[in-house]
Amino acid sequence: MNTKNQVKRTEIATLGEFGLIETIKAKFDKLINPTSIIGIGDDAAVIQAKENEQILLAADMMVEGIHFDLAYTPLKHLGYKAAIINFSDIAAMNGVPTQITVSIAISNRFSVEAIDELYEGIKAACSLYQVDLVGGDTTSSVSGLIISISVLGFVKPEWVVKRSGAKVGDYVCVTGDLGAAYMGLQVLEREKLGFIADPTIQPNLEEKDYLIQRLLKPEARLDIIHQWKEQNFIPSAMIDISDGLASEIKHICAASNVGVQIVYENIPLDPSTQNTSLEFNINPSVCALNGGEDYELLFTTSAENYLKVKNNPDITLIGHIIEKEKGCNLLTENGLNIPLYAQGWNHFEK
Amino acid sequence: MNTKNQVKRTEIATLGEFGLIETIKAKFDKLINPTSIIGIGDDAAVIQAKENEQILLAADMMVEGIHFDLAYTPLKHLGYKAAIINFSDIAAMNGVPTQITVSIAISNRFSVEAIDELYEGIKAACSLYQVDLVGGDTTSSVSGLIISISVLGFVKPEWVVKRSGAKVGDYVCVTGDLGAAYMGLQVLEREKLGFIADPTIQPNLEEKDYLIQRLLKPEARLDIIHQWKEQNFIPSAMIDISDGLASEIKHICAASNVGVQIVYENIPLDPSTQNTSLEFNINPSVCALNGGEDYELLFTTSAENYLKVKNNPDITLIGHIIEKEKGCNLLTENGLNIPLYAQGWNHFEK
Repeated sequence: MNTKNQVKRTEIATLGEFGLIETIKAKFDKLINPTSIIGIGDDAAVIQAKENEQILLAADMMVEGIHFDLAYTPLKHLGYKAAIINFSDIAAMNGVPTQITVSIAISNRFSVEAIDELYEGIKAACSLYQVDLVGGDTTSSVSGLIISISVLGFVKPEWVVKRSGAKVGDYVCVTGDLGAAYMGLQVLEREKLGFIADPTIQPNLEEKDYLIQRLLKPEARLDIIHQWKEQNFIPSAMIDISDGLASEIKHICAASNVGVQIVYENIPLDPSTQNTSLEFNINPSVCALNGGEDYELLFTTSAENYLKVKNNPDITLIGHIIEKEKGCNLLTENGLNIPLYAQGWNHFEK
Repeated sequence: MNTKNQVKRTEIATLGEFGLIETIKAKFDKLINPTSIIGIGDDAAVIQAKENEQILLAADMMVEGIHFDLAYTPLKHLGYKAAIINFSDIAAMNGVPTQITVSIAISNRFSVEAIDELYEGIKAACSLYQVDLVGGDTTSSVSGLIISISVLGFVKPEWVVKRSGAKVGDYVCVTGDLGAAYMGLQVLEREKLGFIADPTIQPNLEEKDYLIQRLLKPEARLDIIHQWKEQNFIPSAMIDISDGLASEIKHICAASNVGVQIVYENIPLDPSTQNTSLEFNINPSVCALNGGEDYELLFTTSAENYLKVKNNPDITLIGHIIEKEKGCNLLTENGLNIPLYAQGWNHFEK
């Protein structure tokens, strides 16, 4: 008996495509969002429109080897994160997500149990955010795992926040702290290399919990979106931070036809992000500005409206909007004012 | 000078992900559906709900090597078809598609020009059906091409047609003719094998135009859906034929808790489907029953309501709904009544 194989492994071929769909359907049979009328099982899901609200629609695709490495990404976390990054797109429009469709392509390397873990993660995210999985597709892949999710949400027309609404003089704010997911990735990549060099060594993840959690189990800031409804606060422009602060603020500036002045010292960093970046000989500003996958909200607001949110400890003022001609600049800790460089993620760079 | 390389080839890396998104955005900048408020370019698209209508949402994924072979599938046709199969899902609910999101994963084997062809095909389908491409994702892939589309549409609540509404005594009908796409696939597979054996031979596609067109450039039967609105006709159950008649009617029977009696001789086959199947030594019933990708509509209706559509030359009565206990049966041309066997597509079978 091979003790390594005590984890149950059922081949997907034994279930077939319809069998696999049935197990997924059973997991999401109970619809939780009041707008979900018909979920999985017909040619399309049926969703009740919300009175006086507009519909939001977005989609994201995650590819193994590009967006995630299964060597250190548990499938349940991957499913959770794949759902969250879609919820975050809806939050970035100041809306609330209500339904998703999930399409996956999987090679026969994956067992039924592995796919079940993936959907358990999606289900955990859906339960927490009151979103229903109402459709999608399952197919085989010649190589790795691909997860493609689309998300539907609702927002009142007067609440829609675009990237293009920033005005000269507006304040620039972020929720939470930045750069932790990027440092979490560095930690896990280091452990992976260490494991390849010597598989007997135990991972050294002391005090890295927060960073790893930020990478593997991010959250969408719907808590903030719901708070704002109560405070009657609407940002002038907003985007979620998936590619790093520098890249995202440049999207806002381009869409709004303005420039920006960011003050480096104001960018919120968790102490563990700061400490670990020094340990890795990485300038902490790189984590904050060019590290991605924080899924925090970056928004602008008039100085007057800012008063409504300034006492929220989860919101930090990091700069202000200036004329387009003045450019997009960063005031460094040394007092230098330098142009912001948006590295972002470029999947197609060689 | 290499004459083979006169087709322009721009590497995606020279454009980068943002450059690629900009070229796609430019292609779909002009929104054509009145419900599209904000398209590509923000975190999510904004769509105006239609008064007194429900929302339909579906998704499909196409994987190179599983769903298509680029050896004989022009990218423009592939884009067209990827959009059409999604529109067809909305038609199968008796609704009208209005928006899609398109996510693609591509390896660096594809040039900017190739991706442009793909989106030209999607645009052609969108223009014809008055649908807007409002979002999506572009990423790189380690191997082939993956296209994941989600589609949103609208339908009046009283018009929604599910798979589950078929009643004992209802008539079973199909639109158009069946099996042609399957024979088109056989023809192209034969030509591919011929080309591999001897690259100098010219393809022999005489009189196969219709079959190949049905495979490479299918249509969604929105024409029928619009006609029915005018005739005030609503089927009792409906599904679109993507996996072959046998498989699809079984889905209706399972969802409706009924059985079915199909009469083989009534199944509409184009003469070229019939002739080519004989040429290939394939029983024509295999094309009709188990060949997929016709994207015709399979529906049931009460005998009384059938009168509204019986004069439509594009609709054929092929059987009727019976008690569940009597099973799902096919009356063959030899007068034998045999159980329907649904082969369908099983991507996960070894």
